Amino acid sequence: MNTYDDDQVGRARVADSPELLAYYDELAQLDAGALWTVANEIEPWYPQPKSVPVLWRYRDLRPLVAKALAMVKAEDAGRRVVMLVNPGRKEHSAAVGLLYTGLQIMGPGESMSAHRHAAAALRFVHEGTGAWTIVDGQKLKVGPGDFAITPNGTWHEHGNESHDAPVIWQDGLDIPLTNTLDANFYEIHPELHQRPGPVVNSSVLSHGANLLPYGLEKWTRPYSPVLGYPWEPSYQALRNLAKATGGSPYDGVIMEYTNPLTGGPVMPTMGAHLQLLRPGQRTRAHRHTGSVVYTAAKGRGVSVIAGQRLPWQQGDIFCVPSWAWHEHANLDPNEDACLFSFNDFPVMRSLGFLREEAYPDHDGHQPVADRQP
Amino acid sequence: MNTYDDDQVGRARVADSPELLAYYDELAQLDAGALWTVANEIEPWYPQPKSVPVLWRYRDLRPLVAKALAMVKAEDAGRRVVMLVNPGRKEHSAAVGLLYTGLQIMGPGESMSAHRHAAAALRFVHEGTGAWTIVDGQKLKVGPGDFAITPNGTWHEHGNESHDAPVIWQDGLDIPLTNTLDANFYEIHPELHQRPGPVVNSSVLSHGANLLPYGLEKWTRPYSPVLGYPWEPSYQALRNLAKATGGSPYDGVIMEYTNPLTGGPVMPTMGAHLQLLRPGQRTRAHRHTGSVVYTAAKGRGVSVIAGQRLPWQQGDIFCVPSWAWHEHANLDPNEDACLFSFNDFPVMRSLGFLREEAYPDHDGHQPVADRQP
Amino acid sequence: MNTYDDDQVGRARVADSPELLAYYDELAQLDAGALWTVANEIEPWYPQPKSVPVLWRYRDLRPLVAKALAMVKAEDAGRRVVMLVNPGRKEHSAAVGLLYTGLQIMGPGESMSAHRHAAAALRFVHEGTGAWTIVDGQKLKVGPGDFAITPNGTWHEHGNESHDAPVIWQDGLDIPLTNTLDANFYEIHPELHQRPGPVVNSSVLSHGANLLPYGLEKWTRPYSPVLGYPWEPSYQALRNLAKATGGSPYDGVIMEYTNPLTGGPVMPTMGAHLQLLRPGQRTRAHRHTGSVVYTAAKGRGVSVIAGQRLPWQQGDIFCVPSWAWHEHANLDPNEDACLFSFNDFPVMRSLGFLREEAYPDHDGHQPVADRQP
Amino acid sequence: MNTYDDDQVGRARVADSPELLAYYDELAQLDAGALWTVANEIEPWYPQPKSVPVLWRYRDLRPLVAKALAMVKAEDAGRRVVMLVNPGRKEHSAAVGLLYTGLQIMGPGESMSAHRHAAAALRFVHEGTGAWTIVDGQKLKVGPGDFAITPNGTWHEHGNESHDAPVIWQDGLDIPLTNTLDANFYEIHPELHQRPGPVVNSSVLSHGANLLPYGLEKWTRPYSPVLGYPWEPSYQALRNLAKATGGSPYDGVIMEYTNPLTGGPVMPTMGAHLQLLRPGQRTRAHRHTGSVVYTAAKGRGVSVIAGQRLPWQQGDIFCVPSWAWHEHANLDPNEDACLFSFNDFPVMRSLGFLREEAYPDHDGHQPVADRQP
Repeated sequence: MNTYDDDQVGRARVADSPELLAYYDELAQLDAGALWTVANEIEPWYPQPKSVPVLWRYRDLRPLVAKALAMVKAEDAGRRVVMLVNPGRKEHSAAVGLLYTGLQIMGPGESMSAHRHAAAALRFVHEGTGAWTIVDGQKLKVGPGDFAITPNGTWHEHGNESHDAPVIWQDGLDIPLTNTLDANFYEIHPELHQRPGPVVNSSVLSHGANLLPYGLEKWTRPYSPVLGYPWEPSYQALRNLAKATGGSPYDGVIMEYTNPLTGGPVMPTMGAHLQLLRPGQRTRAHRHTGSVVYTAAKGRGVSVIAGQRLPWQQGDIFCVPSWAWHEHANLDPNEDACLFSFNDFPVMRSLGFLREEAYPDHDGHQPVADRQP
Repeated sequence: MNTYDDDQVGRARVADSPELLAYYDELAQLDAGALWTVANEIEPWYPQPKSVPVLWRYRDLRPLVAKALAMVKAEDAGRRVVMLVNPGRKEHSAAVGLLYTGLQIMGPGESMSAHRHAAAALRFVHEGTGAWTIVDGQKLKVGPGDFAITPNGTWHEHGNESHDAPVIWQDGLDIPLTNTLDANFYEIHPELHQRPGPVVNSSVLSHGANLLPYGLEKWTRPYSPVLGYPWEPSYQALRNLAKATGGSPYDGVIMEYTNPLTGGPVMPTMGAHLQLLRPGQRTRAHRHTGSVVYTAAKGRGVSVIAGQRLPWQQGDIFCVPSWAWHEHANLDPNEDACLFSFNDFPVMRSLGFLREEAYPDHDGHQPVADRQP
Repeated sequence: MNTYDDDQVGRARVADSPELLAYYDELAQLDAGALWTVANEIEPWYPQPKSVPVLWRYRDLRPLVAKALAMVKAEDAGRRVVMLVNPGRKEHSAAVGLLYTGLQIMGPGESMSAHRHAAAALRFVHEGTGAWTIVDGQKLKVGPGDFAITPNGTWHEHGNESHDAPVIWQDGLDIPLTNTLDANFYEIHPELHQRPGPVVNSSVLSHGANLLPYGLEKWTRPYSPVLGYPWEPSYQALRNLAKATGGSPYDGVIMEYTNPLTGGPVMPTMGAHLQLLRPGQRTRAHRHTGSVVYTAAKGRGVSVIAGQRLPWQQGDIFCVPSWAWHEHANLDPNEDACLFSFNDFPVMRSLGFLREEAYPDHDGHQPVADRQP
Repeated sequence: MNTYDDDQVGRARVADSPELLAYYDELAQLDAGALWTVANEIEPWYPQPKSVPVLWRYRDLRPLVAKALAMVKAEDAGRRVVMLVNPGRKEHSAAVGLLYTGLQIMGPGESMSAHRHAAAALRFVHEGTGAWTIVDGQKLKVGPGDFAITPNGTWHEHGNESHDAPVIWQDGLDIPLTNTLDANFYEIHPELHQRPGPVVNSSVLSHGANLLPYGLEKWTRPYSPVLGYPWEPSYQALRNLAKATGGSPYDGVIMEYTNPLTGGPVMPTMGAHLQLLRPGQRTRAHRHTGSVVYTAAKGRGVSVIAGQRLPWQQGDIFCVPSWAWHEHANLDPNEDACLFSFNDFPVMRSLGFLREEAYPDHDGHQPVADRQP
């Protein structure tokens, strides 16, 4: 018998009958139902995500993002964001699984008002040098390739202090998760703006090189005290690791942005990685529970996700649904390529749902339907 | 301005225009959208659960549950369960939030085949003395009022060794959560049945009185090594606590079934409580994130949930959606009343979403729309 | 070459010479020395405890303990205690390693004044029914076989409310450890006595059967919230475990008194066990780092420690030094025998020093010098 | 009555008498004693360390260390180390409390054989550019100001690959602690030497900038996976922190070398700090349990310890006993000064013994007996 055959002992296989249909009606009147009518659907053999692999090309999106600058006022939009919506997850405004992502644009000199919410946010800067954010009173300046966090419950507001160029950064949030858990709250800052402390980037200055500030007030919050992870040292850390290790067969040389107080993810609901594919490197396929949004941070390559080829270059965004096979390749023979990504692995790990599997056939590579470039 | 008014700075308030509608179409073609069109909805001021308070009366359900015994064969149904479905959560087969519950009946001498899944399960026995379950090779006998767990990934199978009376127990599972996270797996035991070890109830025998077995193999799984929590000592523990403390203003004398290795919940996704309301006690209202399914384990009383009076007696089941005000009262002037409940608090706590608030007005009591009994 | 031979590369083997002796003098004048003159001594091949196995017979000690009642006034002695002193550890007043133990006697109606110290204490009651202790305002009554704790920094005072019989209990403290670490503090209660709360034994009443009080103030102290572990349920837990498991080859059926919030030891510096030897049972020898003080709580038997036979019966106390081989036997063919013990394993475990080894020869039994009974 | 007066209720104050002396003899014959004869001594009002403040000047020690190079062969000495011995702790070969330190010299081209022990070690390099160490197969090169660890149980061997200059580094070990706990083991590598992997400094390359390698084998050991903390990035981290914070009133700008997987100390028994005193800065005095060995890593200054002025310059070593008041000053008006230090705080913290107190008088400064510079 086929492993995934529902017509076997241990699966529900009750045929409808007039009596049963009447019985189901009786149950429905008591806000009840018969488990066996839905059992095979709600207890699937393996995850059945509605999310599909999607590639969002930066060159396609950027003009539309720029257009928003003129079309809506920041103060009316709240935040001027083009969100990326998975065709299978429209009702959740999710890019994949329970993760939201979008491209936010701020014009020269613009700033947004302060608010906070139970949803956690992160940023990855695509372009512009004038971006700043104030998180719980701490001002942080961020530039291209920088990664920053705005944890659950922190007051935050953003702006662009450039005189001539817009900022475009990518937001990542766990909004769909927070709503699914009926746990979202939103609050506008009573004074609309925070008063930042005198030192810019203080959390970045305070943490580095495997040393921690000592004798200061104990940090008890469930997220990283480091609010920003600038591109240059992060990329350098990755290059150093590349000297020391061969890396993962599935991910190349890969590091996680961490909370230096725990070695764990930056926030309890979302983690983030930076990975390097050596010139010409092609990884093997694997799959795991948990959803991932990838952004090409450097170079160009192609990822094969659930058998679909998604070619990418710097700025492009794509997603991997839970339990989908995926593998990556750097198409440049001379330069390394880097992928930034964020995920819901911390959720999967905390709740005991993390599972991983290597692709067993064809030397670890999936067959692809479409043509090679 | 009203706190929860969407027409203020910090909320989205962009009016539609022909240009914008055209723009939205352009975005949609790229699997994108404008955040401000959904922002106020996906970032609500406070949780907006679709679940509503529901009371399921045991005296109404029991005849229908009993009917299933005759109408469907266990081997066809997989498990013969009448599930309780919240009118607002039908698409998830959820009783409330992301929690599933149902009443399972097993006839004298019946047994089910063994399987396992990523969803975690728990049981609370309503009636019958012949119930047994085998969890990862350990046989456990359970009777009325007993609480037992079947954690994520454990092989399990059940039966009723009584010669004359059916068993009815209540299942609680995190199936909706597991599916929402795209993390469910299901597997039928290759031999359809396990071979249990020689000692029945061994985990119950091995843990008690604040001592732990020493020098045995280290337990590294993320759930309690205690698989069963019998009624008698649990109720006794509650009565002892009642001698030592006044209890919680919102919950009376309340205890959590715990993993004795961590002091934490029995499983990473679901916790369970047993609480005692003294004769005539009426608690004050509070609300919190997280959903709860209650079962009246002893006595009779009334709970007011989101302003609705739900009178209950032993065997009845009701639910409290996330962030709904709720308070309980024991209507018996002479006997204590007990509520068993299970919840998703471990999820809320791990992910940093737990929040609680006392009802501020009317001495802690909600106004109710309907008549008093 | 013999494994433990100091005459090999990797050990110090510098012969004295006039030049070197002069050099050593030069070093001494600068508060310095040459490592190689002491290296082999301070870096031994394996632990070299100065403690030796000792058996203290209760029938020998009791008369002397009773004598103290008449000879010194409680208020002059502070506490009227006969301490047990290992011949190898006199300068530390230690029974073994860095553990102190003694027998304290309180006459009918006597009570002691309140104090606190950085050293942690525990009690095991030998005789008398009137004993009480107040620990941080909580009154606890204890009887024969009961185990109680007085953690680091808690105010405590004791007494005997019997009208006619003395109380004799055994104190266990980490005084030698606390002093060795230069960390002891002592303070007399400003009012000489505490005012206990209305409920006696409240922590015992509040914890049991693998449930924990919920919704009370969060316990953040580094020791168990349970201050007393009465004999009856503890012994019953042990008997239950004996039904479920064969037990340890070295210790029989053994349980650790635990902090139900962590599954760990009752205090960060001392742990305690209760173990049962079945009628006639003889365990195999092992050794481990860490020191142990044993008290025969029930029955009679013999332990072989570092090749010495120490026969014991109820009330007797004996010790096992770090890294000494030890094995136990119950000499009664019909009744079980129980050993209570306390140890410094929590220290060894926290600091990464715990190591264990089974005795490899003679079927796990040491040769003994003296005659068998 | 004076707080620290032993002639009060709650302290032992039993006068000797012929009867009591005879009684004490009786007790002694049973390996017992009367607690009240030693109680006030073993339960002191506050810590009574035998260690005293000591300053070891590098310019005094260096010639003697260099002399050892000629006087003893490395293979005879095991390691050629001049150890620093506190006058109050000679029997433990301790520099202070239960900490050992010494200056090790290796001539050009020399190397030592491999061994391991339960005692943990750390290194701080004073001079020489050729130093290397191999720890559990990982080769690490270290230079002046670098800090490195050799945790409990790791195979290690050292050498100097310079052609012309010696290496002098400072060893710090917890040997006295390990012996006091009867927990030391020593083993010579069966092949006398390890075979290091191909990448030098791989753990340093693999960890940095608040990112961690992902998807590699999980690190489960109780110490930092980072084996070396080079001077340059450590000092830079300290300078960055100095931009972000004012620092501690007692320690200036201070950081702890940490295990990036836990945010905790590098090893379970010893921690290490690097601190910066701004030009001319004078800190306030405080005291704490736990012992510290300081090394002047940069600049010149003076520390006042228990009322004694200890002036230091780069290379000098001094110690602070447990509970001794201490404060530091940078005597240079233009350059910052840095102190490296290691301590037993992890022990004190794990066991619950850490306590701290600010000096209350004279604006936080102790009176000193000797003259100011």
